[in-house]
Amino acid sequence: MSEFFKNIPQIKFEGKDSKNPWAFKYYNPELTIMGKKMSEHLPFAMAWWHNLGANGVDMFGSGTADKSFGQTPGTMEHAKAKVDAGIEFMKKLGIKYYCWHDVDLVPEDPNDINVTNKRLDEISDYILEKTKGTDIKCLWGTANMFGNPRFMNGAGSTNSADVYCFAAAQVKKALEITVKLGGRGYVFWGGREGYETLLNTDVKLEQENIANLMHMAVDYGRSIGFKGDFYIEPKPKEPMSHQYDFDAATAIGFLRQYGLDKDFKMNIEANHASLANHTFQHELCISRINGMLGSVDANQGNPILGWDTDNFPWNVYDATLAMYEVLKAGGLTGGFNFDSKNRRPSNTFEDMFHAYIMGMDTFALGLIKAAEIIEDGRIDGFIKEKYSSYESGIGKKIRDKQTTLEELAARAAEMKKPSDPGSGREEYLEGVVNNILFRG
Amino acid sequence: MSEFFKNIPQIKFEGKDSKNPWAFKYYNPELTIMGKKMSEHLPFAMAWWHNLGANGVDMFGSGTADKSFGQTPGTMEHAKAKVDAGIEFMKKLGIKYYCWHDVDLVPEDPNDINVTNKRLDEISDYILEKTKGTDIKCLWGTANMFGNPRFMNGAGSTNSADVYCFAAAQVKKALEITVKLGGRGYVFWGGREGYETLLNTDVKLEQENIANLMHMAVDYGRSIGFKGDFYIEPKPKEPMSHQYDFDAATAIGFLRQYGLDKDFKMNIEANHASLANHTFQHELCISRINGMLGSVDANQGNPILGWDTDNFPWNVYDATLAMYEVLKAGGLTGGFNFDSKNRRPSNTFEDMFHAYIMGMDTFALGLIKAAEIIEDGRIDGFIKEKYSSYESGIGKKIRDKQTTLEELAARAAEMKKPSDPGSGREEYLEGVVNNILFRG
Amino acid sequence: MSEFFKNIPQIKFEGKDSKNPWAFKYYNPELTIMGKKMSEHLPFAMAWWHNLGANGVDMFGSGTADKSFGQTPGTMEHAKAKVDAGIEFMKKLGIKYYCWHDVDLVPEDPNDINVTNKRLDEISDYILEKTKGTDIKCLWGTANMFGNPRFMNGAGSTNSADVYCFAAAQVKKALEITVKLGGRGYVFWGGREGYETLLNTDVKLEQENIANLMHMAVDYGRSIGFKGDFYIEPKPKEPMSHQYDFDAATAIGFLRQYGLDKDFKMNIEANHASLANHTFQHELCISRINGMLGSVDANQGNPILGWDTDNFPWNVYDATLAMYEVLKAGGLTGGFNFDSKNRRPSNTFEDMFHAYIMGMDTFALGLIKAAEIIEDGRIDGFIKEKYSSYESGIGKKIRDKQTTLEELAARAAEMKKPSDPGSGREEYLEGVVNNILFRG
Amino acid sequence: MSEFFKNIPQIKFEGKDSKNPWAFKYYNPELTIMGKKMSEHLPFAMAWWHNLGANGVDMFGSGTADKSFGQTPGTMEHAKAKVDAGIEFMKKLGIKYYCWHDVDLVPEDPNDINVTNKRLDEISDYILEKTKGTDIKCLWGTANMFGNPRFMNGAGSTNSADVYCFAAAQVKKALEITVKLGGRGYVFWGGREGYETLLNTDVKLEQENIANLMHMAVDYGRSIGFKGDFYIEPKPKEPMSHQYDFDAATAIGFLRQYGLDKDFKMNIEANHASLANHTFQHELCISRINGMLGSVDANQGNPILGWDTDNFPWNVYDATLAMYEVLKAGGLTGGFNFDSKNRRPSNTFEDMFHAYIMGMDTFALGLIKAAEIIEDGRIDGFIKEKYSSYESGIGKKIRDKQTTLEELAARAAEMKKPSDPGSGREEYLEGVVNNILFRG
Repeated sequence: MSEFFKNIPQIKFEGKDSKNPWAFKYYNPELTIMGKKMSEHLPFAMAWWHNLGANGVDMFGSGTADKSFGQTPGTMEHAKAKVDAGIEFMKKLGIKYYCWHDVDLVPEDPNDINVTNKRLDEISDYILEKTKGTDIKCLWGTANMFGNPRFMNGAGSTNSADVYCFAAAQVKKALEITVKLGGRGYVFWGGREGYETLLNTDVKLEQENIANLMHMAVDYGRSIGFKGDFYIEPKPKEPMSHQYDFDAATAIGFLRQYGLDKDFKMNIEANHASLANHTFQHELCISRINGMLGSVDANQGNPILGWDTDNFPWNVYDATLAMYEVLKAGGLTGGFNFDSKNRRPSNTFEDMFHAYIMGMDTFALGLIKAAEIIEDGRIDGFIKEKYSSYESGIGKKIRDKQTTLEELAARAAEMKKPSDPGSGREEYLEGVVNNILFRG
Repeated sequence: MSEFFKNIPQIKFEGKDSKNPWAFKYYNPELTIMGKKMSEHLPFAMAWWHNLGANGVDMFGSGTADKSFGQTPGTMEHAKAKVDAGIEFMKKLGIKYYCWHDVDLVPEDPNDINVTNKRLDEISDYILEKTKGTDIKCLWGTANMFGNPRFMNGAGSTNSADVYCFAAAQVKKALEITVKLGGRGYVFWGGREGYETLLNTDVKLEQENIANLMHMAVDYGRSIGFKGDFYIEPKPKEPMSHQYDFDAATAIGFLRQYGLDKDFKMNIEANHASLANHTFQHELCISRINGMLGSVDANQGNPILGWDTDNFPWNVYDATLAMYEVLKAGGLTGGFNFDSKNRRPSNTFEDMFHAYIMGMDTFALGLIKAAEIIEDGRIDGFIKEKYSSYESGIGKKIRDKQTTLEELAARAAEMKKPSDPGSGREEYLEGVVNNILFRG
Repeated sequence: MSEFFKNIPQIKFEGKDSKNPWAFKYYNPELTIMGKKMSEHLPFAMAWWHNLGANGVDMFGSGTADKSFGQTPGTMEHAKAKVDAGIEFMKKLGIKYYCWHDVDLVPEDPNDINVTNKRLDEISDYILEKTKGTDIKCLWGTANMFGNPRFMNGAGSTNSADVYCFAAAQVKKALEITVKLGGRGYVFWGGREGYETLLNTDVKLEQENIANLMHMAVDYGRSIGFKGDFYIEPKPKEPMSHQYDFDAATAIGFLRQYGLDKDFKMNIEANHASLANHTFQHELCISRINGMLGSVDANQGNPILGWDTDNFPWNVYDATLAMYEVLKAGGLTGGFNFDSKNRRPSNTFEDMFHAYIMGMDTFALGLIKAAEIIEDGRIDGFIKEKYSSYESGIGKKIRDKQTTLEELAARAAEMKKPSDPGSGREEYLEGVVNNILFRG
Repeated sequence: MSEFFKNIPQIKFEGKDSKNPWAFKYYNPELTIMGKKMSEHLPFAMAWWHNLGANGVDMFGSGTADKSFGQTPGTMEHAKAKVDAGIEFMKKLGIKYYCWHDVDLVPEDPNDINVTNKRLDEISDYILEKTKGTDIKCLWGTANMFGNPRFMNGAGSTNSADVYCFAAAQVKKALEITVKLGGRGYVFWGGREGYETLLNTDVKLEQENIANLMHMAVDYGRSIGFKGDFYIEPKPKEPMSHQYDFDAATAIGFLRQYGLDKDFKMNIEANHASLANHTFQHELCISRINGMLGSVDANQGNPILGWDTDNFPWNVYDATLAMYEVLKAGGLTGGFNFDSKNRRPSNTFEDMFHAYIMGMDTFALGLIKAAEIIEDGRIDGFIKEKYSSYESGIGKKIRDKQTTLEELAARAAEMKKPSDPGSGREEYLEGVVNNILFRG
């Protein structure tokens, strides 16, 4: 194995007073928080596509970073060099998981899916061989059903039954590779499952066909021994004008409508939440209270931009409130996948490490601070007290569905007017959060 | 009855070449379109609150229009003058329906809900008396559970069991008045059903309590003979930072989750669609394909503004695509309520009529053009052809859930690569729409 | 010359009742409107990049359309095939102008700018030869200073003096080619002139350097006989997080600040206006009243999406209000460049024509309807009357700067309160517009 | 003077480990930072309107908080009670400045401006009397030219010369009161200076009239001894669809165009920045590099909402980057005005204090952390190094305007291709910021 990153030292925890750019300031894997090691709370994953593939190309310019790793892109030699580089990268940072699309792992043959599938067999053998004896494993896999021109009108939602077969074939193969690599989950992100214009779209047929594909995936996955969760990754739009998995509430409603809610959970991405005009915490909370918080794509968007920027997570407020939801949910069945890419002008190998160090420290801080918020108790205590009128009397009857409009209206008529429901204390609670965040 | 609008002539249809500001150019109630009179396709309704109440006040300035109708606001005399003015207004325009919140009809007594309820009895008697012998009737009623300070933390979602009793009492009374006035529907718009910040909110408890309130409303409504539909009116935010009924997909998912989908449908507002980052047509389409398109709030937002502007509907593209969905759905169980208000500088009685004439003509044009699109057949024909591969062979097996990943993957392996799924022809279809819209 | 589009007939005007997909319904070049032929009002241009280059690639998928025109992309043979195809395309549609970036015309040599420049000499010779005897000519040229990785930190705003030399060299060459091809204008679109983050940016230095580059361009352009206008094309963001030419007001302020306002005007793009949260009409109006309305990029965005979609212009409201501004300005010094691209699933040669037919008809309708609005006179008459109080008396003194706060305050003290300033009549005026648009 | 807030203790600094809700954790007025006391760095001001006036009313509900202070709103007794309450409030928090609109100070007489003006004389006497011997003084004053119905079509931009007189009269009086109260500045916020629709608007006339009003204000202000700065407070929209002072760049361009740039600076509001799709730091930076950073409205918006929420500033990232700009500018000529209001459910006197404590601590943290960033030097050092190629050689010639396109192009031809301009290191720099923010 070549050493692609030999100029980068092994990254270790040095604590918050360190100015060493090659050290964690907050991510201390061995630290115990609320009874569990930080590394267990935070099963970080490397996203194969961004970290080993993204070279800075955007709609207005070509790549600025070299991700050839000494080989010619489009070859199996390059695919293997990416495995080598990826494993070296994960080891330097102490990351134990990776996530992939089929076409991140190998170049897709434009003319024959059978050739692509053979390459997937070969590369998964290579990965298993190279990770043998390490604790590096697959977090989740997925099939890229949005990049190939054949999916221009959708994959599960395509108008072409022939194309649908290819979507099915890719899901089948990606499930097999996921199982082979010991993956904890399998993801559906519906990048072309939606529409450009309603003028040419049969929404009902498309949604039903997507549900059918998911049912077949569950059946096949279970038949080959896949025991993990399936995940939907909601995103409202981009590339399509409208994507069916708009947000967590929409995706959860879809799963219930089509009887898929036992096998599926949500994979929530921060940037997708903001594109849907939600907060990251909101999407996590909606998933949690529906018992569907499965996994997280750890990144962040730019609130003044309207597309998927996939920035590395920087904002500790967002990370803290996210980890608060994760702790309340009792953790994830998946993990924290850095679906994040370096800014286009951050075009060096050094920048890849700077970004991961920063992102891992951000979530480590989020975990530390979320745990402190829970231990502090002021926020949770306030909420408990705020709703205490439902713990007895008429409030309890409401909760227990033991009352009627007539009974409640009679109460109101007696009271004539209710007392003040009490201040929401938002500014006080925000002050508490700042106080916990910035006390060191 | 005073004549408040005596300077305004009776508004009649004069056709598209008229320049008479006091005439309809497109709204011809007697015209038959697709087998039904235009007036039956378009059961327009006047919104009591905007038309008889809104005086131009906004967050930065006080009222510019006088809606006292010769009486002192806050009195029952004023409430009755509004009835008189409203009926005169509807007659001049040929509008047959009206929509209301309880507190639009009468001033709310700040100290005793029993006083308010008696006023509601009195005003509904007065309305029945004044509309006797006319064809003017109630489209739908609703309880305002967002204006009173008691609802500052929500109504069905309030933290206070006492406040919840008042929400229940208002719903009960508003249902009774709806039935008394012969209303076709009853609406829930959750203006305060949501949160300002997750730091002080128990989302699960709040959503369950809202569902409980809706169940009690259905039980009570059916018990007093209400046969119409209940409607949820989705809106994503404003006044709250997040409202639970974010959009149609979210609200439909909620109804299914809590077993309310048999009694409820959607009341879709154009401006709420745009605030949720959807098109108006999208929200109507999602409702339609779920069998839940019930009623419409006819207005429009300003795509560059981020709040509920409630403009009168002007855009004929939007109205045409909306009416296309309504025609496809076979019509509404409700109607088209002008939840629209004059711009603040449009502060005269004349402006009230200009706005309704413009709005009614916009939807009349929308109906005419939507029917022409359907009769023209190019759009629908394109869609049918586009998905034709699902009508037989493997496509039909996919639709009928008679296949598996294995079978589909085997097909793909045989094909090696699929044919092009075929152009979506978006620009051509847009050209067809313009051609139909602008040929006169 | 090969015939790439031999299956497409010559596109002619057939009138609004035509259902022929290969005919104009509104664009009638010979029709006289307000004393000028439609073709003179509407100097349409083909954008070399989108029409001859864009193949449907987006951030989530590869190309769906074949734009090789029988040659290998990246070669001079391909560059020439594009010239042939472009000229054939323009002739079939009756389009007389084209717009280009340097790197649209020829492949850029990655290692030597001198090689690229020689290719530009060669291709411009070829274009001149092929357009000889036709009325096809260059509308404007520009240098692509955003695609090459060297510009990742900006071009005029780069941190590297070496890179700045290359920006200057490209501008110099593009100006020479523009003059050689008889171009009416020269455009600066600052795709990388802005910042990703203020954490690494010296905004003042960058803006001054951009101004210096523009001054050098004016000096050089004038020295080689360029008599046309320079244009800034404002865009608020994308690809950068913030671009300095945010909108027309910002760009005009910049030009005045640095003494460039005599040589520069605006090139206003519809989609860029919407990304800046303005209407298209707004940007044109601001340019017009500052004497800086130069040219137009004719496309449209999707109001619910947050990136540059470059749709073909479909919306006749927008086109009408745009043409209203253009007519009020007395026309453009540039023209109407279709900076528009086919949707990714519109992947055939037929779609290229459908899109241009639709776009040209949209602007033809806009012109027809804008002229009708002006001739109708209700809108302009209302505005004139609305401000009539400034035509005499104290109003005239205010306009003539012949008064003081003291005098005006004394008047107010006398009046005690002013009369109502009069209704803005927005809904009435919108009704007038619909009436004119939809009367056929 | 009544003690309205007698249950609230005097608020003092206790340090970051305090959990006392009635103590500052970071705002330590006596602490010296970069050679100046924190209290001098942070001249905080109370906004009369929000703190003493806003009662929680919004477009969907009536007030939740009682701001009568024991008197009847609309009377001079109430106006004086507000003075008493305001001074008590400021003293408890150690705030030394206040800001006001004319109509915050006294109720406006609906029929006679002379009556209103006499009330302004009376209340300003009362304020002077009550603040005598204290260090409490006016930061800035302004005339409310957006609330009164007379301004429905604008103030300086009104269509009515009579209404313009009232705008002028209010500015004159507000300037006099500002001078009388020792105000450091005078603000123009153009709440109705813009348009609802271009269909009824003469933008050029309106902008020229605004400029004329500002010139008269400068002339009059200087004539009565006003030595402070005039400020424009940019805001893009709301209440109007478009407001002329869209953002800092637009307002600065306007000031230069009309020769007002010597007397005016910017008053930058965080929430207005976000409504314009800018960051707070961006607006401050643009003002600073143009020598026009004057004063700050300290609040924050909600990035997922599209209207002016005027939240109290909570986000320490924003406050830090804001204070970085302020420190770089050498401080403000104005101060930090809390143009912030309690959330509607935060309806108690306690909440008023919680909010100010939180907001003051947020800016104190911002100051501390901004100073640490500057002292740390990694950010500034990176920027200096990044642009170092302009310090000598061809770079220096570019900066000094001593070169030409020809010279630069010749250099490029020699180089053939430039070297990489160097990584922007965004993620590294973000890591540095987090490291400084969260080390305690």
